[in-house]
Amino acid sequence: MENKEENKNFTINLEPIGKRIVLDSPKNGMEAIVDSGIGLKSVCGGKGTCGKCRIVVMGDGSQRISETEKKALGKEELKHGVRFACQQVFDRDMTIYIPASSLTEEQKLQITGEETAMRVDPVFNKYCLKVKPPSLSDMKADFSRIRDGLKEKHNVIADSIDYSVLKYMPGILRQHSWEATVCLRNGEVILAEGGDRTSEAYGIAIDLGTTKIAVLLVDLLSGKTIGKKGVMNPQIHFGEDVMSRINYAMQNPEDAKKIQAVVIEQINKTVQELAEKSGISTDSIIEMTVVGNTAMHHIFLGLPVKQLGLAPFVALTDIPHLIKAREIGINITPGGYVYMLPVIAGFVGSDHMAMILATGIDDMDGNFLGIDIGTNTEIVLKSKNGIESVSTASGPAFEGAHIKYGMRAAPGAIERVVIDPESCRPGIQTINDKKPVGICGSGILDAIAELLKAKIINNRGKFQPERGCLCRDENGKLQYMLEPCAYEDRHCRKEDIMEQAAEDNQEAGLLTCLEGRISINQTDIVEIQLAKSAIRTGIDVLLENAGIGFKDIDRIIIAGAFGSYIDPKNVVNIGMFPDVSIEKIVQVGNAAAVGAKMVLISSALRNKAEYISSRAKYLELTVFPTFADHFAKSTLFPEPSEII
Amino acid sequence: MENKEENKNFTINLEPIGKRIVLDSPKNGMEAIVDSGIGLKSVCGGKGTCGKCRIVVMGDGSQRISETEKKALGKEELKHGVRFACQQVFDRDMTIYIPASSLTEEQKLQITGEETAMRVDPVFNKYCLKVKPPSLSDMKADFSRIRDGLKEKHNVIADSIDYSVLKYMPGILRQHSWEATVCLRNGEVILAEGGDRTSEAYGIAIDLGTTKIAVLLVDLLSGKTIGKKGVMNPQIHFGEDVMSRINYAMQNPEDAKKIQAVVIEQINKTVQELAEKSGISTDSIIEMTVVGNTAMHHIFLGLPVKQLGLAPFVALTDIPHLIKAREIGINITPGGYVYMLPVIAGFVGSDHMAMILATGIDDMDGNFLGIDIGTNTEIVLKSKNGIESVSTASGPAFEGAHIKYGMRAAPGAIERVVIDPESCRPGIQTINDKKPVGICGSGILDAIAELLKAKIINNRGKFQPERGCLCRDENGKLQYMLEPCAYEDRHCRKEDIMEQAAEDNQEAGLLTCLEGRISINQTDIVEIQLAKSAIRTGIDVLLENAGIGFKDIDRIIIAGAFGSYIDPKNVVNIGMFPDVSIEKIVQVGNAAAVGAKMVLISSALRNKAEYISSRAKYLELTVFPTFADHFAKSTLFPEPSEII
Repeated sequence: MENKEENKNFTINLEPIGKRIVLDSPKNGMEAIVDSGIGLKSVCGGKGTCGKCRIVVMGDGSQRISETEKKALGKEELKHGVRFACQQVFDRDMTIYIPASSLTEEQKLQITGEETAMRVDPVFNKYCLKVKPPSLSDMKADFSRIRDGLKEKHNVIADSIDYSVLKYMPGILRQHSWEATVCLRNGEVILAEGGDRTSEAYGIAIDLGTTKIAVLLVDLLSGKTIGKKGVMNPQIHFGEDVMSRINYAMQNPEDAKKIQAVVIEQINKTVQELAEKSGISTDSIIEMTVVGNTAMHHIFLGLPVKQLGLAPFVALTDIPHLIKAREIGINITPGGYVYMLPVIAGFVGSDHMAMILATGIDDMDGNFLGIDIGTNTEIVLKSKNGIESVSTASGPAFEGAHIKYGMRAAPGAIERVVIDPESCRPGIQTINDKKPVGICGSGILDAIAELLKAKIINNRGKFQPERGCLCRDENGKLQYMLEPCAYEDRHCRKEDIMEQAAEDNQEAGLLTCLEGRISINQTDIVEIQLAKSAIRTGIDVLLENAGIGFKDIDRIIIAGAFGSYIDPKNVVNIGMFPDVSIEKIVQVGNAAAVGAKMVLISSALRNKAEYISSRAKYLELTVFPTFADHFAKSTLFPEPSEII
Repeated sequence: MENKEENKNFTINLEPIGKRIVLDSPKNGMEAIVDSGIGLKSVCGGKGTCGKCRIVVMGDGSQRISETEKKALGKEELKHGVRFACQQVFDRDMTIYIPASSLTEEQKLQITGEETAMRVDPVFNKYCLKVKPPSLSDMKADFSRIRDGLKEKHNVIADSIDYSVLKYMPGILRQHSWEATVCLRNGEVILAEGGDRTSEAYGIAIDLGTTKIAVLLVDLLSGKTIGKKGVMNPQIHFGEDVMSRINYAMQNPEDAKKIQAVVIEQINKTVQELAEKSGISTDSIIEMTVVGNTAMHHIFLGLPVKQLGLAPFVALTDIPHLIKAREIGINITPGGYVYMLPVIAGFVGSDHMAMILATGIDDMDGNFLGIDIGTNTEIVLKSKNGIESVSTASGPAFEGAHIKYGMRAAPGAIERVVIDPESCRPGIQTINDKKPVGICGSGILDAIAELLKAKIINNRGKFQPERGCLCRDENGKLQYMLEPCAYEDRHCRKEDIMEQAAEDNQEAGLLTCLEGRISINQTDIVEIQLAKSAIRTGIDVLLENAGIGFKDIDRIIIAGAFGSYIDPKNVVNIGMFPDVSIEKIVQVGNAAAVGAKMVLISSALRNKAEYISSRAKYLELTVFPTFADHFAKSTLFPEPSEII
């Protein structure tokens, strides 16, 4: 939106990193990407022969194909927009997907939060038994033999057997001298293995995010996570945010299947990798638990999402679902199940439910706020009234979108900002200490809080040029530079200051930076202001509804990948939580993944989650009587005096 | 086997009719088939243009293809051996499959037996309800809306919903102003329909036989059968009997899948036809029940059958199975189930279980025998010791196989035989009063009994040429002619009698018939003798084991298609059941299909069947101490004085 006045230029969106490049003239793809600070693999030096710099040009397939690409890439690849960055020219608005395999460094993906102590209480049991082989004087069916053995030796009843297990069990029994380990789940035999395998049982817990998928391989007997991996959600091909995914899936049944298939495929691939790394077979993985927002939940199950894209945005189902993994193409043991924690509403998913479970707020006395900041920010309040949640459209600003130099938390992203209130000079810290490439959510949050503190913006978010800390961009718009210029003693070159000030007839100290370095502009501040207001409004409504105030809150739990990188002080400083001492704020990281793991290893916790979910209430903000008042009030930032 | 001496000739096996033609010189396929008495469709008169006389030349694909066939038939058809009968020459031992569509008349397939009065007691319930559409002030999930409506209006709990129903339910609700009928099965929503559909519910009951499949479309609310069809089991392509099917399925996983796929496809096709005929959608079919012998049961479920083909011939499972129809590709409502009645042992299938249920012998006081005659004959004895079953390898003689002129019960088969004890002349009756083509099981049984009564054979089954009622075939073997010669006053022509008698130096009255008409020879009698002995042995062992005698039996129930065509008097006369008054014998037809229907419409009967099955015992004949003695004794036929 902020680029509308720059229509002579063109913008290149780099996905899934979430970085935008603005170019004013055509530029070689590889150069453009590398110049923007992203490490792209290349061995041949841009000759198009090594094939390392594969990118995907998104959108219609009308892009040019070089002769080199035609020769080196397969028909299918070409059809799907696969190209070599070094062979492409970026000369128009484009969206480019850079696969992880083409990047020199992987993205920073947080995959587990703080795990509270968990008691293992499996949803299954494994039993080893040796049975007599059949003979003409003992012609019992294979399964009866196992069933009777279980009863006699272990005093348990096997009511049924998954029919896929029946398919391979006779082979197992005969190959292992009629000694087998069977896994019983709620009276059903779901796995049979040769010999004694009672000391092995594995499961997978997944936090299926719109952007990221966290996959944990868990030893179900010890409760230990023995492997984990964070991968990008490949659905990003079909749209960056939840709404664009919903729109894609709504188009026709084929597209709905496709968007389901890519995520299943990615999960299968990651599970396979984790299993191989741990030296186990995916056939010994008994169960998978999946949490995610409601759209991810529905798409994963292949359910329609049209009603999630249209008011009043309702979920199709809010009960737990237990389905055979094979029904949706998940490759674990053929008789295994996928357990889906219940979602709460159209915009409050099972990831939120998992977060509630993982943070344990249900068990605590007092008033607790739990927040997972994202494009939609889900907020839960636990008070004596029980558990109530809201979802608020905070927008993607904290994920780096709609911010001029915004990007996701990848190497080179500015993640910490301090501003010296005297000199106005910034101090920055980037992820992996790389050369700055852009700014990610935690950096933006810091920057705004520091700008407020340094009085460079006022409590309405307006730049205060009289502070003499700003300069102009190439279009004359005010900006605050986050990087010092090449001349380290100033933000911008003296020559430019004087020249430009004279030319523009501006007061001194209002500089124009001609170097295009990373900065924060007024539009960026407005985006953050809106995001913060949305979240604050959600909190205010929840508190009003429960009849309590901020001072009554005993603890604020910030969950989610983003939430664990931010500086809690600055969350208070921008007014998201006023009147709250920082000690009350706890960052728990990816609590959703922890919740997914909890319901994987413990049937008691699963029951508890289902119980919580059956009582959890959803509060629709937009119909709350004082919603508009709250929203209007919450756009203001705190006064500088309130900044801590 | 009896054709070994005729190795100058060649034999054409016509399937699935079970008729064999012996030719001594090459013959056009259509002529050979039509001359054997089988009505083959033809419009063009053998020019190969109408395509009506399609046959399948079984075995390797090396047969010749005429130019006409090459033009008229598709590649796939040619590859699978499809040819035109009129374009083929039968000039070697061949097996020819004649599809029903090429026959002028359908085979006689019995599809239902005597239905006892059945109380409808469905395994599901349907409820109509209208719910409020969602709004911003009422954002409940679709399924919660339905669940709450069910609770409020009907006071029932829906614990879960099949995920395939979730896929289409949102559309149904929105298209029908939020009025829907949901079908609840054991707490699970398995079907959702728009508007009020509570007065409609359908199910399918199937008796899956090795040769035939009986399919019943049942109104689950009234219990009435509203459509039925008997079709050939298309697996006959892969082998005629159970053992050859098992051998085929054992070869490799692809073949196992193929042999499962053809039967599923045939069932889907038949269900579709029955549904269309009744003007209903297959989507409104809620459940299917399937019974069959253990091999059919296992193959239908895609289970391995190797262990059924090797001693000690054990089943893989003998518990009931309830699986989602879609899991095995059965096209009924997406959330619907297939219920498989339990099998009892490797050679006592769920069709036997269904027969036990249908005949109600479990409820009766006294001693009851139930018999289903086939290649394997299953026999159940209900006595004060409970229910015990045996399976006996009676061979395919009663199905017309291994009998020189044997065939299955198709039009033109001799089904009744009487022999005048004075003149030795036969009276015959054929199916549909067609010109005789061969002899089916009931006809053979009659013939043997009448031969005994007329003392043409003795109680060891030996032909008694001195009775003057026999003649010789072209190889000089003794035979009894079932058709009079063209000269109606004699069996064979006088001229031939004299000439041949002189030439062979034989006594007068031992005639040679040169016309190749339908007859019974010594080998045929031995086959029946073995079949009868096997069955009698099974009965004797069961009785000895229960400590009772034939006189203690209150009723003998003969089930199965074959059993309903035979003359009970002659079953006694050949000594299968000695000392039993005919009044005690009841023929109940296809009791297996009735049993399948009973468990379809009544959950009480389903529970009862599962209870019976859990108590039913299987007795392995071959390890029974007195088995050999019984068998030796039972080969004898009764003395003529004992014939009634």
